[in-house]
Parts: sequence; structure tokens; C-alpha cells
Amino acid sequence: MTVRVGIINVTGYAGMEAARILQTHPGARLVAATGRSLAGQRLGEVFPHLSSFEDLVIGAEIDAEVDVVLSALPTAASAAACAPFVRAGVKVIDIAADFRLRDPGEFAAWMGADHPAPELLEMAVYGLPELHREAIRSAQLVANPGCYPAASILALAPAVAAGIVEPRIVVDAKSGISGAGRGTGGGYNFSEVNEDVSAYKIARHNHQPEIAQELAALAEGVRPTVTFVPHLVPMTRGIHATCYAPLRKAVSQPEVVELYRDFYDGHPFTRVTETPPHTKHTLGSNRCLVHPVVDERNGMLVAIGVLDNLGKGAAGQAIQNMNLMCGLPETAGLDGAPLYP
Amino acid sequence: MTVRVGIINVTGYAGMEAARILQTHPGARLVAATGRSLAGQRLGEVFPHLSSFEDLVIGAEIDAEVDVVLSALPTAASAAACAPFVRAGVKVIDIAADFRLRDPGEFAAWMGADHPAPELLEMAVYGLPELHREAIRSAQLVANPGCYPAASILALAPAVAAGIVEPRIVVDAKSGISGAGRGTGGGYNFSEVNEDVSAYKIARHNHQPEIAQELAALAEGVRPTVTFVPHLVPMTRGIHATCYAPLRKAVSQPEVVELYRDFYDGHPFTRVTETPPHTKHTLGSNRCLVHPVVDERNGMLVAIGVLDNLGKGAAGQAIQNMNLMCGLPETAGLDGAPLYP
Amino acid sequence: MTVRVGIINVTGYAGMEAARILQTHPGARLVAATGRSLAGQRLGEVFPHLSSFEDLVIGAEIDAEVDVVLSALPTAASAAACAPFVRAGVKVIDIAADFRLRDPGEFAAWMGADHPAPELLEMAVYGLPELHREAIRSAQLVANPGCYPAASILALAPAVAAGIVEPRIVVDAKSGISGAGRGTGGGYNFSEVNEDVSAYKIARHNHQPEIAQELAALAEGVRPTVTFVPHLVPMTRGIHATCYAPLRKAVSQPEVVELYRDFYDGHPFTRVTETPPHTKHTLGSNRCLVHPVVDERNGMLVAIGVLDNLGKGAAGQAIQNMNLMCGLPETAGLDGAPLYP
Amino acid sequence: MTVRVGIINVTGYAGMEAARILQTHPGARLVAATGRSLAGQRLGEVFPHLSSFEDLVIGAEIDAEVDVVLSALPTAASAAACAPFVRAGVKVIDIAADFRLRDPGEFAAWMGADHPAPELLEMAVYGLPELHREAIRSAQLVANPGCYPAASILALAPAVAAGIVEPRIVVDAKSGISGAGRGTGGGYNFSEVNEDVSAYKIARHNHQPEIAQELAALAEGVRPTVTFVPHLVPMTRGIHATCYAPLRKAVSQPEVVELYRDFYDGHPFTRVTETPPHTKHTLGSNRCLVHPVVDERNGMLVAIGVLDNLGKGAAGQAIQNMNLMCGLPETAGLDGAPLYP
Repeated sequence: MTVRVGIINVTGYAGMEAARILQTHPGARLVAATGRSLAGQRLGEVFPHLSSFEDLVIGAEIDAEVDVVLSALPTAASAAACAPFVRAGVKVIDIAADFRLRDPGEFAAWMGADHPAPELLEMAVYGLPELHREAIRSAQLVANPGCYPAASILALAPAVAAGIVEPRIVVDAKSGISGAGRGTGGGYNFSEVNEDVSAYKIARHNHQPEIAQELAALAEGVRPTVTFVPHLVPMTRGIHATCYAPLRKAVSQPEVVELYRDFYDGHPFTRVTETPPHTKHTLGSNRCLVHPVVDERNGMLVAIGVLDNLGKGAAGQAIQNMNLMCGLPETAGLDGAPLYP
Repeated sequence: MTVRVGIINVTGYAGMEAARILQTHPGARLVAATGRSLAGQRLGEVFPHLSSFEDLVIGAEIDAEVDVVLSALPTAASAAACAPFVRAGVKVIDIAADFRLRDPGEFAAWMGADHPAPELLEMAVYGLPELHREAIRSAQLVANPGCYPAASILALAPAVAAGIVEPRIVVDAKSGISGAGRGTGGGYNFSEVNEDVSAYKIARHNHQPEIAQELAALAEGVRPTVTFVPHLVPMTRGIHATCYAPLRKAVSQPEVVELYRDFYDGHPFTRVTETPPHTKHTLGSNRCLVHPVVDERNGMLVAIGVLDNLGKGAAGQAIQNMNLMCGLPETAGLDGAPLYP
Repeated sequence: MTVRVGIINVTGYAGMEAARILQTHPGARLVAATGRSLAGQRLGEVFPHLSSFEDLVIGAEIDAEVDVVLSALPTAASAAACAPFVRAGVKVIDIAADFRLRDPGEFAAWMGADHPAPELLEMAVYGLPELHREAIRSAQLVANPGCYPAASILALAPAVAAGIVEPRIVVDAKSGISGAGRGTGGGYNFSEVNEDVSAYKIARHNHQPEIAQELAALAEGVRPTVTFVPHLVPMTRGIHATCYAPLRKAVSQPEVVELYRDFYDGHPFTRVTETPPHTKHTLGSNRCLVHPVVDERNGMLVAIGVLDNLGKGAAGQAIQNMNLMCGLPETAGLDGAPLYP
Repeated sequence: MTVRVGIINVTGYAGMEAARILQTHPGARLVAATGRSLAGQRLGEVFPHLSSFEDLVIGAEIDAEVDVVLSALPTAASAAACAPFVRAGVKVIDIAADFRLRDPGEFAAWMGADHPAPELLEMAVYGLPELHREAIRSAQLVANPGCYPAASILALAPAVAAGIVEPRIVVDAKSGISGAGRGTGGGYNFSEVNEDVSAYKIARHNHQPEIAQELAALAEGVRPTVTFVPHLVPMTRGIHATCYAPLRKAVSQPEVVELYRDFYDGHPFTRVTETPPHTKHTLGSNRCLVHPVVDERNGMLVAIGVLDNLGKGAAGQAIQNMNLMCGLPETAGLDGAPLYP
């Protein structure tokens, strides 16, 4: 039996990446896709790289029977679009940030608006299989992690769970430009972001509480503080999260590597590396590379997580969650190697 | 039955791209790979994107029984490495330029050295399936096309074959930097090729006679002249060949498009587009996009071909040839969509 | 005496580059600048790289007395803005395309609209000092060349003027993305033009007749045909025009180089190179590098011109014209070296 | 009187940038330059962007009388080359790291070799005018700051000097590829660093003690710890240092901005910004932009410094130091605006 998938907002980068992956997925099939601005046009014509969907017409609404819906709408718009499907018993994966923060007060504080469907928050599972695989398997509503949190949490989780670091954390993250999305006016003109690095939303990005929430759940009684600073760098895809946490006690580099290896044992997409990882080694794939380094001189753990913001940071992760929710093999459709060089 | 593949020089860009494709090929398996500088190391460790080859040790020689050998050695070194396999009855695909020019005199004139194995030239088939699919099926030795010629010939072939253009041709080609190869001293430092375009080997690149030879074979009695100018542009992958040929007679844009569509009918990787194609729409794939334009004002045909120089321009093409030579489906292992954006 | 300069549309790339150059110009001073969307704001605050203009308020109109006006409005809007200044006796340099084509019929044919001020066309001088220096000195209205034509005409002029080539010309040009301008919606998103090459307006760009017009003026009785194909490449600045023209008779490489050197003798910004020039060797400067190559095998001249599209291709050229029109040294303010690497 | 300048190793990026600046310096003149690999060739021919040095022959040694020597040799080789000039009474600016660490033990610990001229360490002044302007004016030997330290120290100095932060500091720095230098084998191939971010020398780069040393000198009795992690990002020039330091007490954003503004008052090249600065706003210039942000939620100061690694991070800074040492105006030759876009 083939899983029938609908994508809401296939015309954004995350939505079109999910469609790209589904092109060669052995157990799932894209049967409907929405995208208001291009409704009525054929998906394979509008986006030449999706040419195998020559006959799929982009709709204003999901107009076919589906087993799973992936919503790639912008944050705040997504919950409203997901709610009817959730209520109808359809499995839903929200790639936006609408169901990630469990506390509606936090949502309001960071998003500047009340949560559009607070009654659904309780059933939402945070879709990071390395932390919540079993819960995802039986979930009906999954909140797909943000691209920055995915890299940051995977870099820090083993250390926080083992209690080897103080919970005063700095996350300095670098993102490719596609993280800013497709419908972005003149702000991301090639000529202005090329040959440039800049920070934005310093310590006030809504991914900050998302990281803090998930790290808090790893160690009882701990409320980590996270200072999160995102940066744009001139590449299309890739997240490089460099995380800093003071070590509670002396620990050796090999001990930390072993701790990390144990933590990710059995997780097919997250690997611990012994040399600094390159974002390019994840390009176009669902992989995450994690690299912990003990700075003995200063008693600091430096933990790096890298991934493709549209892969493990968005659409790849969503397909992995879909596989788990639908009883498919976890890696189905996701075994493509990164594109290198 | 699974085809057993050996790659000579897996450490170059074309060789590693062939390995990348084989990772998910349903009917073939990489069983041996050479690469002198890294001999003795594990392929999956040296190149993190090839991590599924964790246990494959790079050898000094092909040290397993193989059904097909792909040679990705530099031009001039490749023929000598291929010859023993050819003589032993193994199928061989040479990704270098050693067996492309049928005339050893031409080889000597353009390469500045005698051909290292002229006795094998006669059996070599030029590995462009859009022109020679049946011959490739039964070939034992295939000369894989150069990246520039692949794009240029596919852009021009329908027009030349139909006799609608004069054979005085200009090919202005733009290539990503990976076309220059991996072992390239200081010449391709990021800081110097970034934010730069330059031409090189103006009208004296050995791809010029390769293009001329294949176009000549398309129309009896015609000896096309080709002025070929390659350029480096600051991107990793991609070839954009813009070809100019005077029209012999008035022909309309729709007529030319139809002519091209007919020519490529049944060829799964080459598509005719109605708008100017983007190299990015072929990134990481085996696709070639072709776009002919009639410049009525000047009686000129402008024909564009774009592809990924490591895909349809090298390793993807080689796997397509391997599929044909080994009786596998032509598209096996090659159905991945381009990476976009 | 210091020349007082006004810039119309300082908020576009060409306008802001003119302001950048004026920051250190020894004989001219920016006294007024317009830019509707940012009117009322200080130039040095809006654009941090122009911080020496901290006190210059962007106006809706030129609101100070000026000796020269540079208009960097988009083509078609520019003529209307320039006309009142021309009529008032102010010197005007139009960086847009409005006064370049001498024939209003050509303008209408290529722009799709009637010329907004045809009565001024006769007094306009084409602002390429290498061809028209004396006329520019005494001109009141100068039509600054387009970025593509500047590179193409400078590459071809010596050969056309000497009559050594047939007038059936192909110009294949590659441009950095800033050539598309600043106010450009979502079409030039980094994520989509990065790692991409594509052609556009194939043989129907309005720079095609501009090139043809200026080449025609170089040789009596000759009406050159020009097939012009522009391409976008992923860099911010730079034009690389590769031009092809059949040779009328055998001519040697040294003869052609000497011919070119003689032609540009005494022109401070245009140099003839003996190796293929790099756009990066002109970055941020007013330089043009020209490189002719004789393709003896095919009887073809390949002539390359490279420049910075915002320098010699727009604002730098405009300042050079301003210097000539105002009796300043031709190189004043323009002696900065290219930025390399 | 014109200052006569010699550059040792003009063929590296820092050396050639110093030459580039000297091309238009009103009070100094490049009279000699060395560069072993290219000795005997003319500087203006080898590097087309330095064409005004057409007649300057690159020597094996400084072969003219000079008032100042700039050494741009790699670290460890530089001291030996500088020493004879220092002993001969010539003013010397060392762009390498050889004279930056005041403690020869620290030098040995971080460089892995004994200091080649420890007797000169005492007379060396750290060449950051914002901290040591008067000492530089009378120095004979100046240790030009590293590119990362220049950005990091300028970002942190006002806060450390005012005692508002704890001295447990994290510096997360991002650099363009030119920081890796010019003679760099195959490690910085465009194809491999393009579309990639990676960290290197995590907490073991020799710029870490350099930052710590200069911060320590700002506040008596404080020994700051610095965890320094450098990253390579795919651009040619630019440093973005993001620095994190715990606040000792509540302080408001406006208070911090005022503190920073006061600190840099009278320093022509360092500006405090109110929005996150872009490296591109310093491209090709000697500017440094500093941006402090109070993260009230977590009691953290985030302080950003951006500059051009070859400008204020190397050659521009060296010229500024030369101006001070030679009694020239501090900004002479350095008033060029950044290149934007």
C-alpha cells in the first residue's frame, strides 16, 4: 500500500523539497499539492526539477484523498490550515513553527500573536526522532523541528542528557540563504547577500525558546538558558550550529565522543565525526553530522551540528517523520548521498 | 544478477561522482576502486559523502573481479590503464578523452603526444546515447563524451542532422569550476575564481575537434568548422553551451522546436525547453536541457545545451552507458531529481 | 572651482556607485540626490558604505544648484527626468538607455514605446570616450553606454574600424547579477541565481541595436549584423563579452595586437592584454581589458572585453564623461585600483 | 617628503593589498618589494590590478633604501626577515604573528617553535591604534594585529575596559577564504569551499591567546579566558566576529551603545552601529563596524565586530600604522569607500 501525501504550499522551498524527495520515494506518492500564487498550473512545468509531476495540477486546496498532509506554510498561517485535517483524523506534519512550543504563552510572547489552535498543542509531538522516535510513531500531529533547532539540539542533546554541562548555553548558528524562504521581496538579492555575512534577530529569534524547551526535557530539574544568534552566510543550503556550554567537570575528548556515539547509536541519519564537519557533506541529504570538542583550557564544550536546512532541517526530516508515522522504513526515500563537491 | 563495477581513480571528481551514483544503483555494485594518493584508506572515511562505502579500501590496482571498469584518470594516462581490461574482455568506459577522437593524427595534433593505444581506437564507441545508443549496447569500449562536447553536440545535433544550418559554428561555453578537476594546485583557489569570469584555451581546447567530429558524422559530406571558447564561471557544477550557427533558410521557431522534440523523442534524459534553461535545473542529475532559438533578424540559430558537468557531462553519462552495455534499464540509478534551489 | 553634481535615483546600483566614486573625487562634489522610495532620509545612513554623506538628505527632486546631473533612472523613465535640465542648460549624463539609439524608430521598435523626448536625440553624444572623446568634451547631453555595449564595442572597435572582419558578428556576454538592478522583486534571489548560469532575452535585448549602431559608425558603408545573447552568472559585478567575427583575410596574432594597441593608445582606462583577461581584474574600477585572438584554423577573430558593469559599464564611465564635459582631468576620481582578490 | 616603503612578500594576499593601497597613497611610495617565487618579474605584469607598478621589479631582497618595511611573510618566517631592518633602525611593521604575543613562552606553546628573535619582543608595540595609538606613533617595530583579533578585540574592548562583563568569553568568528592565504595547495579549491561552512582549529588557533592578551591589558587584575572558534565561509574577504560575554550587572542597550561610542570617539575607522553590521559594508576598506547587543533575558552581552580581513584585518591596518609611525595623517591613502554591492 502506498501512502498518499498532500503538500500544503508546495511552492515554498521546504514544500518543493518534500516533493523532490517524494519523486523517488518507494512507499509514498504525492497526490495533491497547494500553492495559491501558482494554483492551476502543473507542478512539473512550474518547477523544471520536479518534471516527473508533469500531470499534477497545483490546487488552491488539497483536493484528493490523502493519508498524510505536510504543511509548509509560513509560521502562524500553518496551524489554521492544518487544523481541519487533524480534526478529520488525517496525519499531519507541520513544517512551520506553530506546534513546536508546548506553552501557548511562550508562543504568544515570541510570535507576537495568540496561538491559532491551542487545543491541538497537547497532541503535537516534537518531530525529532533522535529524541522522540516512539512518540512520533504513534502521533497524529507532528511539529517538525526548525532548521536551527534541529542542528543545535542534536549537537547538544547527548551532553545535556548526561549532565556534563552547565545549562548556560550559547548557540552561534550560520545558515544558507534558502532558510529565508522563497517569497522574500528584495531582501535577499544575490548582489547584496553575496560576499557578506551578517547576524540578525540577535537573541530574539523564536528558535531560541524552541531549543531551550527541548534541552530542558532532557534533564530533570534543569532550565537551560540559551543565547541564540543566527547569521546568514552566502550559500544556498546548510546550517552550521556552533554550541558552547561550560563543562561541569573534567571530561576527556574520547569520553565525550563515546558518549555521543552511544546516544546516536541506531539513528540512521545522525553521525558523530572526529574532525570538524562540513555543511557540504550534508548537501541535499537528510544527514546531520555532530562534532563535540572539549576545550580543556577553558573548561568548555564546543559542540557542532551541521545539516541541510531543507533536508534534515525541514523536508527530509518531515519525510522521516512521515515514514515513522505511517509504518514505513525510517530511511525510505532518504538514502540519497549528499551532493559533493 | 548485480553488475560488479570497478572505478579507476575514484579520488577525482568524476570518479567520486560515479561512486556516489552507485551507492543507490539497484543493479550494480562498486566492488573495487583505485586512487594512488589515498590507496589503503577506506573510501567512506576519506569522503564523508560516500559513507556507505565504509568497508571499501581504495587500492593501487583494481583488485576484485569486475564486469565493468570506469576510468576517471586524466586524459593521456587513461588509455594505458584501460588497455589491459579491454584485452581481458572486460567492458570499459573511459571518462577521459583518450578514445574520443577516431583519428590518431587528430589526437596527436591536439594532445601533443602520440596515442598510447591506437589499436583500440577502432573498437571504441562514442558514448552519447542520443546519437549512438545501439552501438553502445553492444560495445566493449566506450569513450565517454567530454562535458563541453556533451552539451554542445546535444544542442546542435538536431539542426545539423536536419541540414538547416551552415556548418560554420561558434560554441561559447561556460563551466563550473569542478570541470577543472580536483588535483589542481593553486590555480583554482576560491579567492581568485570567485567573483570572476574568464576564458581559457581560446579556440585551442581539445574539445573543439571532438565536437566537430561528432557533428560531421550527422550529415554526409559536411565538414563543420567549430570555433570553441570555454569560460570558467564561479559555480561548482554546470555547463552552459551557447551555440551559434547560420541558418540555411528561413525556418520558424515552432518548426525548430518540433524538429528538436522529434529528435530527442524516447531519450529519457534530454529535454527540449521553451524558455532559456538554467544549469541549476540539472544540478546533481543526469539531465540535459536543450533550447533552440531562431534569430530571424540575423538568420542565425542560437542553440543552448545545459547539464551538470559531473552528471550528464561525466559520471552520470558513464553510468547511463554502463546500463546500456550491461543490459540494465537505461535510467537505473539515475532517476534522482536535480537539487533545487 | 568644484563641479557641483546631482544624481537622480541615487538608490539604484548605478546611482549609488556614482556617489561612491564622488566621495573621493578631487574636483567634484555631490550636492543633491534623489530617490523616491527613500526621500527624506540621509544618504550616509541608508547606505553605510556612503557614510561620508551623513548630512546629505535624499530628496524627491534635485533641490540644489548643480553643474551636472547624472540620471540613473530606469530606461524610459530617465528621458523625462533629464529633459528639464537639458533645456535649462545644465550638463546631463543619462546612464539609462534613453538617448543611445539615434533613430527614434529603433527606440520604439526595441523598447516598445515611443521616445519620450525625440527632439533631444540630435544633441546627444554617445558617451564612449574611446570613440567620441572630442564630441563628449563639448557635449551638453551624453548618453552613457550600456554595460554590455561598452564591453562589446571596445572589444570589436579596432577590428571593425580597420576593416579586417566581416560584419556578421556574434556577441556572447556574461554579466554579474548587479546588472539586473536593485529593485528587482524576487527574481534575483540568491538561492536561485547562485550556482546557476542562464541566458535571457536571446537576440532581443535592446543592447543589440546599440552595439550595431556604434560599430556601423566605425566603417563607412558597413551595416553590421549583431546576434547578441546575454547571460547571468553568479557574481555580483563584472561583464565578460566574448565577440566573434569572421576575418576578411589572413592576419597574424601580433598584427592584431598591435592594431588594438594603436587604437587605444592614449586612452587611460582601456588596455590590451596578451592573455585572457579576468573580470576580477577590473572589479570596482573604471578599467576595461580587451583581448583579441586570431583563430587561424577557422578564420575567426575572437575578441574579448571585460569590465565592471557598475564601473566602466555605468557609473565610472559616467564620471569619466563628466570629467571630459567639465574640463577636469579625464582620470580624476577614477584612479582606484581594482579590488583583488 | 614621501615615505619610501618596502614590502616583503608582496606576492601574498596581504602584501599585494598593501601595494594596492600604496598605488594611490598621497604621502608614501612603494620602492621595493620581494617575493621569491616571482623574483625578477615586474609587479604590474604579474598582478594586473597593480598595473601602475609596471616598472617595479620584484626582488629576492629589499634592494632600495626604505623608510619603512612591511613584512607579509607567513608567521615564523617573518621575524627573521624583519630583524635586520629593525637592527638597522628602519621602521618595521610585521603583518605576521611573530611579535604579537609578548611572552615568548606563549609563543612557543601556541606556535610549536621557539621565538626566532625574542630580544626584539620588548620593543614591539601591538598595532591596534584604537588601543595603542600613542605608542604606535613612537614605535620602531609594530606587530600588526591578526585579522580575527582585530575584529574581536574591537568588539569587546569597550565592555572589558568598563568592567561590565565577566572575563569568560566566547568568540565565534567567520572568515572569508582569502584569510587562508594565497599559496595554499589544493585545500581551498573553489569547488570544495563553495557552498560550505566549517570550523577549524577549534579552541587551538594562535589568535586565541592574542585576543586574551590584549583584553587582559584593558582591565587590571583580570585574566580573561577566551574560547575562540574560527570558521570558513564561502566569500573572498570579510571577518565577522560574534563575541559573547556574561554581563556583570544589568545595563541597558542605550547605555552600552553610548559606552562604545565614547570609547571609539576620535578613531576614524571604527564605528558603532545600531543594527547588525554586514561584512560587505567594509569590503575593500579599512573600516571596522562594531555592534553591541544586550541580551537582557540571559544577562549576556553579544558584541559583533566586522571588517575586511585584508583591510583593517591586515594591509589597511598596516598602512594606518605606517601613517602614525611616519607622522602622516592617520587616514592617508585609506579614505576609499567600501565596494558595495
